[in-house]
Amino acid sequence: MKTIERKKVLPERSIQPVMASTQNGIDRMLKIIEAVEPQIGAFCAFDRARIHGFVPRPGLLSGVGVGVKDIIETKDFPTTYGSPIYDGFRPRADATCVSLLERAGAVNMGKTVTTEFAFFRPGKTRNPHDLNRTPGGSSSGSAAAVAAGMVGLGLASQTAASLTRPASYCGIAGLKPSFGSYSLAGVKGLAPSFDTLGVLAPNVAGLVAAHGVLGGGMAGHPVRPTRIGFCRTPWWNQGKADMHLALENAAELLGAETLVEPLALDGFVEGEGLHKLIMSYEAVQVLASEYDNHANLLSPQILALIRSGTAVSYDDYLAARIKARQLRREISEVFENYDVLLAPAAPGEAPLGLEVTGDPIFSRLWTLLRLPSVTLPGMVGENGLPIGIQLLGARNTDEKLLEYAAWAESLLPPRQIPKIVANY
Amino acid sequence: MKTIERKKVLPERSIQPVMASTQNGIDRMLKIIEAVEPQIGAFCAFDRARIHGFVPRPGLLSGVGVGVKDIIETKDFPTTYGSPIYDGFRPRADATCVSLLERAGAVNMGKTVTTEFAFFRPGKTRNPHDLNRTPGGSSSGSAAAVAAGMVGLGLASQTAASLTRPASYCGIAGLKPSFGSYSLAGVKGLAPSFDTLGVLAPNVAGLVAAHGVLGGGMAGHPVRPTRIGFCRTPWWNQGKADMHLALENAAELLGAETLVEPLALDGFVEGEGLHKLIMSYEAVQVLASEYDNHANLLSPQILALIRSGTAVSYDDYLAARIKARQLRREISEVFENYDVLLAPAAPGEAPLGLEVTGDPIFSRLWTLLRLPSVTLPGMVGENGLPIGIQLLGARNTDEKLLEYAAWAESLLPPRQIPKIVANY
Repeated sequence: MKTIERKKVLPERSIQPVMASTQNGIDRMLKIIEAVEPQIGAFCAFDRARIHGFVPRPGLLSGVGVGVKDIIETKDFPTTYGSPIYDGFRPRADATCVSLLERAGAVNMGKTVTTEFAFFRPGKTRNPHDLNRTPGGSSSGSAAAVAAGMVGLGLASQTAASLTRPASYCGIAGLKPSFGSYSLAGVKGLAPSFDTLGVLAPNVAGLVAAHGVLGGGMAGHPVRPTRIGFCRTPWWNQGKADMHLALENAAELLGAETLVEPLALDGFVEGEGLHKLIMSYEAVQVLASEYDNHANLLSPQILALIRSGTAVSYDDYLAARIKARQLRREISEVFENYDVLLAPAAPGEAPLGLEVTGDPIFSRLWTLLRLPSVTLPGMVGENGLPIGIQLLGARNTDEKLLEYAAWAESLLPPRQIPKIVANY
Repeated sequence: MKTIERKKVLPERSIQPVMASTQNGIDRMLKIIEAVEPQIGAFCAFDRARIHGFVPRPGLLSGVGVGVKDIIETKDFPTTYGSPIYDGFRPRADATCVSLLERAGAVNMGKTVTTEFAFFRPGKTRNPHDLNRTPGGSSSGSAAAVAAGMVGLGLASQTAASLTRPASYCGIAGLKPSFGSYSLAGVKGLAPSFDTLGVLAPNVAGLVAAHGVLGGGMAGHPVRPTRIGFCRTPWWNQGKADMHLALENAAELLGAETLVEPLALDGFVEGEGLHKLIMSYEAVQVLASEYDNHANLLSPQILALIRSGTAVSYDDYLAARIKARQLRREISEVFENYDVLLAPAAPGEAPLGLEVTGDPIFSRLWTLLRLPSVTLPGMVGENGLPIGIQLLGARNTDEKLLEYAAWAESLLPPRQIPKIVANY
């Protein structure tokens, strides 16, 4: 490990995580929403009357308020998928994930802003840590709402980097489980080879609880991994200096208690291109009706995606899928030597401006490989804003990864609470 | 091969297949619909005004009328998934399969009857060959409409035997492609491990055209397979004597031109139980919102499925998935020795009565294994009604399977045209 300046990146360990779990919790969330939602804009549909005085069911998530990303269908709120094509659309049923969370006592607090069809056109949401910066996307509203304590849990999804990146930018914990883990019934897809439902929470305990309800398996106590592979990835140089420093620092913090070894994975560099190719081909299919009937209401970003996917031949698409399967077999061999991988979650702090949601570069490969991923907060960048780290586990060993993540969380600095809500 | 009485099961080779491909075709389909739809009841949503005078786009399917199973969302017709919970529900977009078929020139003729959520509660549809018999399910309306020439192509789906069985009972060709082949965007699922969109047509040529549009790969000319495995399956004795005879006859017809060998596959007998367990567990998830909010509108059949799925533990579900993956690896080795498998498509002719849609026993294993399956008509049972045969290919070799199926079709008797529409 090279020398690091630890002081620079470690905030003080003084602020406790927010996780509501009582009716008192709901009232506090409502108070925070009233105070800061006008500035943050995490919600696209919200009904105070429906939530106030709500008596939650008993259960693992009793009284936990959930923000539901607006690509997830709900019967009590309109669902627009971030597109004007669906203005005012009202599904008849809740998506399965919403029903399962409610059965466990959670409260649907409302719909949170998504980029258009979970791709790149941003919504109105601002980063609670700095209102001039993007919260990241596509799970923008859920990430901002969790970071600000407006909800205890955020439903999110990832097709490229839509969960990991906003978790990193907003300084919260995120779980993108193994591909296929949570039911996608009632969730609009973008590229079915990759679409994965996941959760955002203030801490790993929140991820564990949500995963127990949505995935079926309960993670236990924190577990120290025997060997961590520190994978800077072939795209390391596309990251900023403060991200490099944050990751090196995290590697040293974890390395104080277990073996952390560099792991190059240069052979996986083509994963980025394969991911883009497959995603664009499948997006053309998924959005066929919207394109045929409402092309004028689609963003330039979506139109460019459809153009690029239309240029992909069926044979190239098949070849990419075969190559992707091969890479998945190869990564499973890597996990014979490592319990968990440590990698960047995003290129740096949340970028300035609200026009773009940041670069998905540091998640495309892992999403292609269908690995479970946990993003952890605690590290900070040159402007004092959050920089997440990413932990990756072997496919379909999500509970184990959560146990390792709980261990790692205990060694990292606590997450920052945005100043805008520091007094609630 | 044992001695067979071929005469008994071979109808005369006099009637040509119906496949509309011109505006004239649409007008003829409308005439047939007007004449026999009141008795057959294939459609649950139909709008003559929308179709009459419709000028189809040019393309591979120009002017081909399509019946769209009502678990598939459409913007121009209500979509109810066969459930009163969704009475009058109107999606904003067409499912991707509908858009792709329309791009190729096909005409959406209307919504065809499905059993409730593609499970067991039948709709109103009757078998065009005998109005006192079930058309099979769950793709009841699409199968009946294709058999009667009301449409040239039927969109169908299969989670257990929902495409193969009605194809067999209605005496038409059916393709359930490899799992994951066609986009499921806008199609309501029942058990995501198995849900597969497919097509019904009067003949293999229709399947090939539809597959080229929905799947991306074009099958070429008929190809004679080198070696066929005749798999009576471990459930052979649950089939009727006339089905046994039909299959033995088909084996002999094909065996006149290539090698047909018996293939037991006794080691796959647990596939049936694994399929039931996984399907019930996943159905509980998929139908969570309907159960929580409208249990009173669910049929006893669906409630029983949910009860049985609720009794399955998460660990048993995971173990079943692992075992299923192992069987998939084993079957891929079988295809190193055989080009194609020949197997029963259903226990016999369509059963009398409209209360049940028949037994899925002869498809559960193949659906679990995610193999592509083609059902071919031509054979008949003791009452002169259709009995299909099923051909199975290695996973993700659907175009090859279609080429073998085109070869097999040329050796089998032609499909029967229902008497009720013999004059159109």
